[in-house]
Amino acid sequence: MMQSPGIAQLPIQKIQDADILEMMDELVIEEPLEIRLQYGPAGDRREQSVSITMRTPGDDIPLAMGFLFTEGIIPDADAVEMISTYTSNSILISLQKNISLDLTKLQRHFYTTSSCGVCGKSSLEALRSVCPSSASASEWQISKDIIHHLPARLFQQQAIFSSTGGLHAAALFDKKGDFLYSKEDIGRHNALDKLIGSALQDSNLPLDNHLLLLSGRACFELIQKAAMAGIQLVAAVGAPSSLAVQLAQEYNMTLIGFVRDQRFNIYAGQQRIRI
Amino acid sequence: MMQSPGIAQLPIQKIQDADILEMMDELVIEEPLEIRLQYGPAGDRREQSVSITMRTPGDDIPLAMGFLFTEGIIPDADAVEMISTYTSNSILISLQKNISLDLTKLQRHFYTTSSCGVCGKSSLEALRSVCPSSASASEWQISKDIIHHLPARLFQQQAIFSSTGGLHAAALFDKKGDFLYSKEDIGRHNALDKLIGSALQDSNLPLDNHLLLLSGRACFELIQKAAMAGIQLVAAVGAPSSLAVQLAQEYNMTLIGFVRDQRFNIYAGQQRIRI
Repeated sequence: MMQSPGIAQLPIQKIQDADILEMMDELVIEEPLEIRLQYGPAGDRREQSVSITMRTPGDDIPLAMGFLFTEGIIPDADAVEMISTYTSNSILISLQKNISLDLTKLQRHFYTTSSCGVCGKSSLEALRSVCPSSASASEWQISKDIIHHLPARLFQQQAIFSSTGGLHAAALFDKKGDFLYSKEDIGRHNALDKLIGSALQDSNLPLDNHLLLLSGRACFELIQKAAMAGIQLVAAVGAPSSLAVQLAQEYNMTLIGFVRDQRFNIYAGQQRIRI
Repeated sequence: MMQSPGIAQLPIQKIQDADILEMMDELVIEEPLEIRLQYGPAGDRREQSVSITMRTPGDDIPLAMGFLFTEGIIPDADAVEMISTYTSNSILISLQKNISLDLTKLQRHFYTTSSCGVCGKSSLEALRSVCPSSASASEWQISKDIIHHLPARLFQQQAIFSSTGGLHAAALFDKKGDFLYSKEDIGRHNALDKLIGSALQDSNLPLDNHLLLLSGRACFELIQKAAMAGIQLVAAVGAPSSLAVQLAQEYNMTLIGFVRDQRFNIYAGQQRIRI
């Protein structure tokens, strides 16, 4: 079978009831794509980065074209003179020389989402320079049974989610698996910012003796935020991305995914889980 | 029961097998929050917008504090002198006068996600000025049975999703419910940009005789992009947000949610569905 460009393979430990399986797992790849625009009349061509989005590689040209169209920057495909790819994570769209670009409109169109910048450097290199914190050397271990019980404790608390089906949650537990508090939001990064912001206001940082449970998937941005707060163990009900796993390894964090139905997968930091 | 600030109530039509129920539904609220920073020494205070994020109201102060901390802008809560709220969707964090801020670092930290800008105006007002397109007057109707069958047709095609559990998909169908193509990505907005970008490159815009199926939730950003492409009917396997529904109404689009197990909810544009 042909390997999709959007999938990475990686060894994991799969915990199911009393069994531990060492196996290969498939993860969705998450990598930054920078979209750069070249524009202006002949003799006065300019170039500007207009977006860096975390995306799954594949269909990068349609992605860039669709982005520029849905943001109202190009009216049709004919506005584009040439498309060039600098690196696998950067694409340059050169507009026709007669296309005028309203830069103030451009600025207004792009609002920011919270994350480490990636700036065309390799993503992990950029992260290293931006996220100084890393899990402390003081390591601890918890039983796998504590992990199994986390989701039920979160879902008991998740009031809005259950009525609307539309929210992400981030929940904090102590090392005994006792629920401390959770925060909800339509954006998963916002739910985690709310959780960490509460701890910050209560002078409870770093959260290095706590467990973090995410109600959905674990992407790079969430692992970066958890690392900033000193969190050493992140468990997610959903799947992690490739970059989330790389980052967890880099920061010596434990990353667990698919926590449901008495099973879970360990993607990084197995030493903190007592089987 | 006290109403949560994160929930809106709204009348919907619930379609289940042959039944239509008119009922109230609870939706998660999605609204922009602008985070502004005031910084600099006494006598030279400056103010700058550093983030606009789509969030669910509630815990706005922890959200802003957590965002600034996890982005490395403030080292602790003591760096903040005062927090003020201009409007319900804007928060101003005033840093202590002795805190120095590296603005280049700031710029590098915030990367953009694609969407309409919101700029402190009420979100729908901003949308009106940014998204000129709206569903055309030529309206059509399809049978509810076509909607019921869409998810199965997408999941047959969704190769990566099934192996990793980590991807969002956007799929295009014709009005008979025949599958045309789908795009996948770790970011739901990217999947839709890829889909629309493909149509743009193939000169198939506007997509006003098509159905769009989203594998997950429908948030405002996806409806905005669909509107730009002229799509008149969006069906989502997951829940819509409050702002997604408002925007669909504004653009005379049909918005359907929770399409699964022979049922779905109509949130806007019921006239396009023949029951």
